[in-house]
Amino acid sequence: MSRSRIGITMGDPAGIGPELCARVLSDASVSQSIVPVVFGSHSILQRAAEAIGVQLPELEVLPTDANANPDSAAVVDHGECDLEIGTVKASSGLASFNYVETSIRWALQKQIDAVVTNPINKEAWNKAGIDFPGHTELFANRCDVERFCMMMYSPNFSVVMATTHIGLASVATSIPTQRVLEVIELASETMSRVLDRKPKLAVLGLNPHAGENGLIGNSEEESFILPAIEAARAKGIDATDPLPPDTAFLPSWREEIDCYVCMYHDQALIPFKAFNFDSGVNVTLGLPMIRSSVDHGTAFDIAWQGRASVSSLLSAIEFAS
Amino acid sequence: MSRSRIGITMGDPAGIGPELCARVLSDASVSQSIVPVVFGSHSILQRAAEAIGVQLPELEVLPTDANANPDSAAVVDHGECDLEIGTVKASSGLASFNYVETSIRWALQKQIDAVVTNPINKEAWNKAGIDFPGHTELFANRCDVERFCMMMYSPNFSVVMATTHIGLASVATSIPTQRVLEVIELASETMSRVLDRKPKLAVLGLNPHAGENGLIGNSEEESFILPAIEAARAKGIDATDPLPPDTAFLPSWREEIDCYVCMYHDQALIPFKAFNFDSGVNVTLGLPMIRSSVDHGTAFDIAWQGRASVSSLLSAIEFAS
Repeated sequence: MSRSRIGITMGDPAGIGPELCARVLSDASVSQSIVPVVFGSHSILQRAAEAIGVQLPELEVLPTDANANPDSAAVVDHGECDLEIGTVKASSGLASFNYVETSIRWALQKQIDAVVTNPINKEAWNKAGIDFPGHTELFANRCDVERFCMMMYSPNFSVVMATTHIGLASVATSIPTQRVLEVIELASETMSRVLDRKPKLAVLGLNPHAGENGLIGNSEEESFILPAIEAARAKGIDATDPLPPDTAFLPSWREEIDCYVCMYHDQALIPFKAFNFDSGVNVTLGLPMIRSSVDHGTAFDIAWQGRASVSSLLSAIEFAS
Repeated sequence: MSRSRIGITMGDPAGIGPELCARVLSDASVSQSIVPVVFGSHSILQRAAEAIGVQLPELEVLPTDANANPDSAAVVDHGECDLEIGTVKASSGLASFNYVETSIRWALQKQIDAVVTNPINKEAWNKAGIDFPGHTELFANRCDVERFCMMMYSPNFSVVMATTHIGLASVATSIPTQRVLEVIELASETMSRVLDRKPKLAVLGLNPHAGENGLIGNSEEESFILPAIEAARAKGIDATDPLPPDTAFLPSWREEIDCYVCMYHDQALIPFKAFNFDSGVNVTLGLPMIRSSVDHGTAFDIAWQGRASVSSLLSAIEFAS
């Protein structure tokens, strides 16, 4: 079996991305199982490796427009950028954006099998005039998909979200039946592939006690969540009725459920992060490629010091491969 | 030191309340530390004890209008009621309501020091024409207080809620600064008494990432949560800035925080129940008496079978005493 080619974007060069890439490239067990293809800057990567005292292996250095399927560890080189370690700058924001764009193009052209992203800084993107709120929306746009959602994956349990970075006040009016169904289907497709069996999905209610038969809230459970569940079941998906959110994460449920279909960001991420704070992988579902991500930010405060933990990046690579 | 007189309401007679009362009364370690005063029915209590094979101790049987401060285990006897085990009935709903009402009166008259409630059935209350949504609102009404809130207490960490049983769509418009401040103060007062030191409070944001400086949501964090925190700090309360909800329950925060001030039901109860599923005590803050409650329902499906766990009731009694 040939090793998967996993694209790894370097993230914001002023953050911890470069040193994490250096660590992964120098890890022999990684290169034994995948072909790592870093999208970033060869010279910045070398300086970051030096800063944290890591020896880079021999790397194939490729131009961004190469039409190649690398067979060994490679860097797709975007050259230098004006960079100040630990500081938000338009120049490094733009560079990190370019790394992601190139990686998407390579993945769409099947030059790599999956993309794993290191953290970018949203403020730096803003300064560079880039108004995508984050990786997910950029991938969806460049892949021209509208049916997508965010998953946080862990071998323990996973969560998907019908809404993500919107205000709590807007959640209740932002999840029509079609959207709930879409997210159930995306979760089912992905978990089936990951587990190689039919997954057990829990669908959460929106209101306290899942609305208590319409006593609490505006019967959102009956009007748009339950119809989506019934449509999903008609397609053979194993999903619960809308569960009371506050008891859905009790140990008895956690043991049984493979993935929770949540209605909003914190309903999913409060329990997910509380239980999987060091093993979570952020995955975008619905793309024509596999895309996973580390579960942390640029950590400007400890950048280039060799203190950043590589475990989330390794989990993201493992998920992708 | 004399033992506290702890009123214990029997809850819905068709549920697990009577057998839990029988267990507690027959537990010698309980009567050594408190004087249990059960508000219910002596004959139903006897039958429940018999059904689960428990021997009741000698009990002082008192009429509901007695003007007494019992010195040993007692039952304030409301007589028989039409009762079908495991079934929702107006008659048992009304009986359970009366037990609570009498206990509140006794507490207001200082005949008992605190009230611990067993579960009632809301549907049975409805059938009996009682439209309080639950214990908390009944206590607040009879004690004539408007400044109150619900706390879930555990030695691990506790949570209070600015809103409780309202739909998610209404949350964002239901928590003015004054309400957030009130809940911070109630949490601070109670935790100071419980811990005998100044507690460390975490105040949560409303939106994902606590609004990310106004990028997500309608700046609720800046407009009404932060002003409440500043007002609380001016009164000497130790409270955090609005925390991003999804990282507030990571282990590092959980170790540091005594009580989380949450904006809505599931923000508080998803993490609380996930971590404290068998040790939680429901407490009403702001009453002129101590009132705690078990953290479970009437469990009609296992009622009178001796299978119900008494641990939550014991925790509630321990908190009250």
